[in-house]
Amino acid sequence: MTERFSSAALGFVCIAGTGMGRLGLMTLRALSRLRNADLGVHDRQVSTEALVQRPPETQRVFGGKAFGIHALLVAHAWLGGWAMRLKQGNLYVFGRGGEDLQALRAQGIAFELMPGLTGASGCSAASGIPLTHRNLASRYVFLPGHFAQNDATYDWRTQARPGQTRVLYLGVQRLAQIAERLFSQGLALGIPAAIVRDGARITQMEIACGLRRLAQMAPAYGPQPGLLIIGETVRMSPQYYAD
Amino acid sequence: MTERFSSAALGFVCIAGTGMGRLGLMTLRALSRLRNADLGVHDRQVSTEALVQRPPETQRVFGGKAFGIHALLVAHAWLGGWAMRLKQGNLYVFGRGGEDLQALRAQGIAFELMPGLTGASGCSAASGIPLTHRNLASRYVFLPGHFAQNDATYDWRTQARPGQTRVLYLGVQRLAQIAERLFSQGLALGIPAAIVRDGARITQMEIACGLRRLAQMAPAYGPQPGLLIIGETVRMSPQYYAD
Repeated sequence: MTERFSSAALGFVCIAGTGMGRLGLMTLRALSRLRNADLGVHDRQVSTEALVQRPPETQRVFGGKAFGIHALLVAHAWLGGWAMRLKQGNLYVFGRGGEDLQALRAQGIAFELMPGLTGASGCSAASGIPLTHRNLASRYVFLPGHFAQNDATYDWRTQARPGQTRVLYLGVQRLAQIAERLFSQGLALGIPAAIVRDGARITQMEIACGLRRLAQMAPAYGPQPGLLIIGETVRMSPQYYAD
Repeated sequence: MTERFSSAALGFVCIAGTGMGRLGLMTLRALSRLRNADLGVHDRQVSTEALVQRPPETQRVFGGKAFGIHALLVAHAWLGGWAMRLKQGNLYVFGRGGEDLQALRAQGIAFELMPGLTGASGCSAASGIPLTHRNLASRYVFLPGHFAQNDATYDWRTQARPGQTRVLYLGVQRLAQIAERLFSQGLALGIPAAIVRDGARITQMEIACGLRRLAQMAPAYGPQPGLLIIGETVRMSPQYYAD
C-alpha cells in the first residue's frame, strides 16, 4: 500500500519484501524503487546479489532485528531522503509488516509497503509440490511451528483432517513432536510430507517421504530450519519415495 | 522447479506465475525467461504491459482455459522451441500448476515452473492489511469461496475461532451466506472484514467495516469477485470504519 498525502515529512520510505532474499525472485517494482533510494536497510537473509543493485552512492545499513531501524527510516524521511528497507519474503505473512506500517503512520511519514514472494509459495514451486491440486487438496493452511508447539489450545484435530495441505516453518527438532500430535488425531503415519531447505537456491535440499519416516530421518540432516509440507500433493515431487 | 535432465525433446517449456498479472509484480527471473522465449501463451488476466516485454518476433497465443494448451506447449518443445506460458498469480495456489507439471512430465519435456505473487498476498499488501500480526492473528487460512459454500462437511467452527485471519476469493453474492455460517458458529457480527477488488491496480477498490455491515453493503458495488479478508488485522487498513 502507499500513503502519500497525509505526510508532514518531505521524504519517503519504501519497505519491500524481496522474495526469499533472491534477486531473481524480487519484483520489477521493488528493484525500480531500490535504484531510486538513497538509503538501503537490509537484514541478514537478503542476498548480496540484490544489494549490489543499489546505486553506488547509496548508504547501506545492516538492519537485522536490531533496535532503532524505524527511528533511522523516520529520521531519513524527515530530512527529505528516500529510504528503502529490504526484508525477506512477504511483509504481511509472518514478516511484521504491520509493525512497520504502524511506526511510519504514527510519525506521519509517506510510505509504501511492497509485497514479495513468501517462502511457502517459493519453496512449493521450487520443489514441485502444489499447495492445492484437484482431488488432492482444495485448501491449505499455513502456521508457524513455534506457535503450534506452544499453544495448548491449538486445534490439532482440524489439522489432521484430509483434503488440505499443511505448511509450517520450523526447526527440525520440533518435527517429531508435531508429527506425534497429528498422529494422535488420526492422521495416517504414512501421509506424504517434505522438508525443503534453502528453497530456490543452488543449495536447495529436499526430503520427501511418509511423515513418520521423515520425522525419524530429518534430524540426521542437521538442525537448520526448513519448510515442512504435509499432504497428498507431496506425492507429485520427483524426490518423493513412498514408505 | 526445473526438470532438465530426463528430457527426450530438444526444447524447453517455462510456466510462470506473473503476480496478479501486473508487470511490476513479475519477478526478474520470469521477465528474463519471457525475453528468451519464442512462443508466449497467456490467459486473460495477464496485463498487456507484461506481454509487450516479449521480443517482437515471438509468436503470441491467447490461451485462457481453452483446450489444447498443453499439446501446443509440448509440440513446440518437441520441435526444439522455447515456450513460455504466463499465468496469473502463483501457479501452485489455486493455479493448477500441478496439472501443468503432470502434462509436461508425462511427455518427457524439460520444464521449469516459476512462482508468482498470489492474489492474497498482493491484495493484503496493497490494502495495508497484514495476514499475521502480533497479538491479533498468529495464523491465516486461505480457502476458495465456492468450496466453502458447497461442502456440507466444511468445518465452520474452526473458521470462527479467534486469533486468525481468514482469506477467501469469492463473488460478492456469496458473501452474505458465508457470513451467516460464521455467525452461527459464534463469530462476532462486528468482526472487521474487507473486500479488495483489482488489488495493486489503479482501479483498486476496498470496503472495510464490520462483517455484517459488509455483507449488507457489498452487493451495491456490483457482482465482481474480490478477495475477502476477515479478522482483527483489518482494523489496520486506513479504509476501515468501525460499526
